[in-house]
Amino acid sequence: MTMVISNCFAKRGASHLWQCSRAPHRRIPAILPAHRTYVTVFGYTQAKALVYSAYGQPKDVLSLHRYSVSPAYGRTLNVKLLASPINPADINQIEGVYPSKPPFTQLLGTSTPSAVAGNEGLCEVISVGQEVLNFKPGDRAIFLAPGFGTWRTHAVVLDEQSLRGVPSDIPILSAATVSVNPCTGYRLLTDFWGEGGLQQAAINGEWVIQNGANSGVGRAVIQMAKIWNLKTINVVRGNRSPTELSNLRNDLRDLGANEVITDEELSSEEIKGKIAYLTGGRGVGLGLNCVGGRATTDMARTLRHSGTMVTYGAMARQPITIPASLFIFKNLSLRGFWISKWAGEKVEERGKMLDEIFEWIRKGWLKDAPMEEVKWTEESKEEELVEAVSKAGQGTGAKKIFVFQEN
Amino acid sequence: MTMVISNCFAKRGASHLWQCSRAPHRRIPAILPAHRTYVTVFGYTQAKALVYSAYGQPKDVLSLHRYSVSPAYGRTLNVKLLASPINPADINQIEGVYPSKPPFTQLLGTSTPSAVAGNEGLCEVISVGQEVLNFKPGDRAIFLAPGFGTWRTHAVVLDEQSLRGVPSDIPILSAATVSVNPCTGYRLLTDFWGEGGLQQAAINGEWVIQNGANSGVGRAVIQMAKIWNLKTINVVRGNRSPTELSNLRNDLRDLGANEVITDEELSSEEIKGKIAYLTGGRGVGLGLNCVGGRATTDMARTLRHSGTMVTYGAMARQPITIPASLFIFKNLSLRGFWISKWAGEKVEERGKMLDEIFEWIRKGWLKDAPMEEVKWTEESKEEELVEAVSKAGQGTGAKKIFVFQEN
Repeated sequence: MTMVISNCFAKRGASHLWQCSRAPHRRIPAILPAHRTYVTVFGYTQAKALVYSAYGQPKDVLSLHRYSVSPAYGRTLNVKLLASPINPADINQIEGVYPSKPPFTQLLGTSTPSAVAGNEGLCEVISVGQEVLNFKPGDRAIFLAPGFGTWRTHAVVLDEQSLRGVPSDIPILSAATVSVNPCTGYRLLTDFWGEGGLQQAAINGEWVIQNGANSGVGRAVIQMAKIWNLKTINVVRGNRSPTELSNLRNDLRDLGANEVITDEELSSEEIKGKIAYLTGGRGVGLGLNCVGGRATTDMARTLRHSGTMVTYGAMARQPITIPASLFIFKNLSLRGFWISKWAGEKVEERGKMLDEIFEWIRKGWLKDAPMEEVKWTEESKEEELVEAVSKAGQGTGAKKIFVFQEN
Repeated sequence: MTMVISNCFAKRGASHLWQCSRAPHRRIPAILPAHRTYVTVFGYTQAKALVYSAYGQPKDVLSLHRYSVSPAYGRTLNVKLLASPINPADINQIEGVYPSKPPFTQLLGTSTPSAVAGNEGLCEVISVGQEVLNFKPGDRAIFLAPGFGTWRTHAVVLDEQSLRGVPSDIPILSAATVSVNPCTGYRLLTDFWGEGGLQQAAINGEWVIQNGANSGVGRAVIQMAKIWNLKTINVVRGNRSPTELSNLRNDLRDLGANEVITDEELSSEEIKGKIAYLTGGRGVGLGLNCVGGRATTDMARTLRHSGTMVTYGAMARQPITIPASLFIFKNLSLRGFWISKWAGEKVEERGKMLDEIFEWIRKGWLKDAPMEEVKWTEESKEEELVEAVSKAGQGTGAKKIFVFQEN
C-alpha cells in the first residue's frame, strides 16, 4: 500500500492524522495546527459538506455529508475552507426561490443528487496539480465561480480561474465576506450616476439615501461613500428600544454616516423639509433599496429630479410601488443590481475592485459588519450546523459565519 | 380717427368686418373667407379665449373672455388659431394637478388674474412687427413655448422663437396635433435603448409592448415602429363589445400593429408562452406605459432581461408596482418621459424630429388618430366650448379638437 501525501503536507514535512471511514486507519498524534486535516491511507482528505437534494427550509433539507477528496492533479487544486458566511441569498437558494440554482449532482457520492450550500468563503490551498500556475499550497483565496458551494471543510477546485488570491495580511473574516457585501456596496455607489459617473458625483458632493443601512451592504456603503466624498442619509427600522436605536445611530455615525433616520421619520410629513435642509436644497441623487414596500416609496419621494433608485434586495418581501408622476415629471430612474450577475460579466473590473477594497481593509477604512462566529470542527454535529443556518438573521442581527477549525 | 389695418389684411387689400365691443363700430359686408376677422376701428383684432382664474373642474372654472389684440409691432407677431386639440394634460393643468402651471396674469384684461387654457395648436400668422425675420403673414406655425395658452381665437406672440413654421402642405389637423403625441411616440421609441440605440434595436428587430395602444401616442408608436423595423405588441382594454374589439384590432393592425391583445390576455397564465412565441423566444425589449396599476405590472413581466419600461402617462391613476426580483434578477430599468421637459431642453433635436415627422405625414406613413372637431366660431357660446372641454375623453374616445372658423 502506497501512501500519497498531498503536496502541501509533504513539503512541510508534517505528520498527520490519517483517517478513512471505509478503510482501516491509524491515528498519528503529532499535528501541525495550521494544516491538521484528515487524510486516508490512500491520500484522500476526509471532508464534510452541508448538502441538500431538494428545496425547502434549511432544517428540513440540509444534511451533513461526509466524503473524501482525492489529491490534486493536473489543473485541479485542493483547498480547505477557513471561513464561509451565511448570507440571506444562501438561504433563498436552499429554499429554491433564488434564480441561481446549482445543479444537483452525485459528485460527492450522496445517495440522491445534491448540491453543496453556501456561495461565499475564504479558503487555503492545500495541494495543487502540476498544471496549476498561480497558486501554491498555503495561498489564500476567495471563490469567484458562482454557486460553488462553500459550506464544506474541503473542496476540489477544477480550475484556478475559479479562485482569486487574497493577500495574507487581510484578516480571515474580512476576506471571507468581501465578495458579496463590500463588492455590492462598491458597485451601487459607482455604476448608477449616469454621465460624469462617480467622479462628477464626488465633485458635486452628491447625497445618497439608503434603507437597511445597518446591513452588511449598508455599512460598506457608508464607509465607501465617505472615502469618495459622497454623503449618506441612512434609514434604519425604528422598532427598537431607545437605547438600541441610540447605539445603532452612534455605531453608523462612527462608520461615517452623515445622518441616521428611522423609517417612521422617513414617512413623516416633515421629511421633505428635513431632506431639503440636510442636502442644502439639492435633494438626494441616489437611493439604494434593499427593503421594498412603503419604505421604498417614501425613499423615492426624497430623490431629486433625474435621481436614480437601485434595488438590490427585498427584505420586506413586498413589491416596489411608485407613483407615475415620479417617473414622468421627476424623471426618476429605477434600476436593479445583482452582484452575481455583474461578477460573471466583469472579471477584470472585479479584480481591480478587490485590490482597492483590500487596500481599504488594510488601512482600516473599511471595517467588517458585526459577525457571529459558528465554529465548524471535525466534532461538529449536523444538528448544530443546520441550526446555525436556520437561525441566521435571527437574534443580534449579526451575520453568522462558519469558521472552520480542526477541533 | 386713423384706422390701422394689420399687415396681412392691408397687403391683401381685403375689406373686413369691423367690430369693437366698446367703441362705436360699423359693419363692412365684403369678406375674404380665409382671413375674415374682427378688427376695431383702431385696428384692434377682437379675440376670445377660454381662461381660468382658479384651479378646478373645467365646467366650474373656465370662462370665455373677450379682449382685443393690438397690431403687431417690433418683435411681436399676431396670429390666429386654426386648430387646437383638447389633450388630457390640458385638463390636468386646469385642475391644478399638472406640474406645469402657467402664471395667472391680467394681460388679457380679465377682472381677476387668469391663464389661457390649452397647450398645443396650429396658427396662421396674420401680422408681424418690423423686427420679425422668419415669418410673414399667411405662414402657418405651431407653438414651441410651453403653456402658451392655445384655446383662443387670436394671440400676440412676443418672440418668433416661440413658433415653429409648418409647411403649407401639412393638413391642419395633423399639424395642430403633431407636437405632443407624435413627438412623444418618436422619443419613446428612440431614447431608451441604451448602448447601440435605436439603430441597433432596428437591426435586432426588437419588440415593443405598449398599453393604451389606441391612444394618440399609441397609434404614433405603432406607425413609427413599423417605419423603424421594430415590432409591436399592443395592449387595449378588453371591456368592449366583440364588434368594437374586432374593429379596434383591425384598425390598429391596419396602422402596422403586429399583435393586439387585451389587458385580460396580458394578465392570463398563457401570456408567457404567447410572448415567447410572438418574439421567437427573444422577449420584449421595451415597454411603454401610460396606464399604471395591474396592467403595468403585467407588462413589466413580459420584458426580457435588461429590458426597459418607460412611463409617460397614468390613465388608471394608480401607481406602478413592480416585484423587486424584476429589478434585481432581470435587471429591468424603469424610466419616465415628459415631452414638455424634453422639448424645452432639446431645441435643435426637436426641429429635426419635426422635419422627419412632417415628411412621414406627407408620405402617408403617419396617419392622425381619430379626432372629433369642435367648431369655434364668432357665434360659439361659452357653454358649448366649456362643455366640449368637460366631455373630452368621453364618448367615442376620439380626441376633441377646436377648429376655428369665422362663422
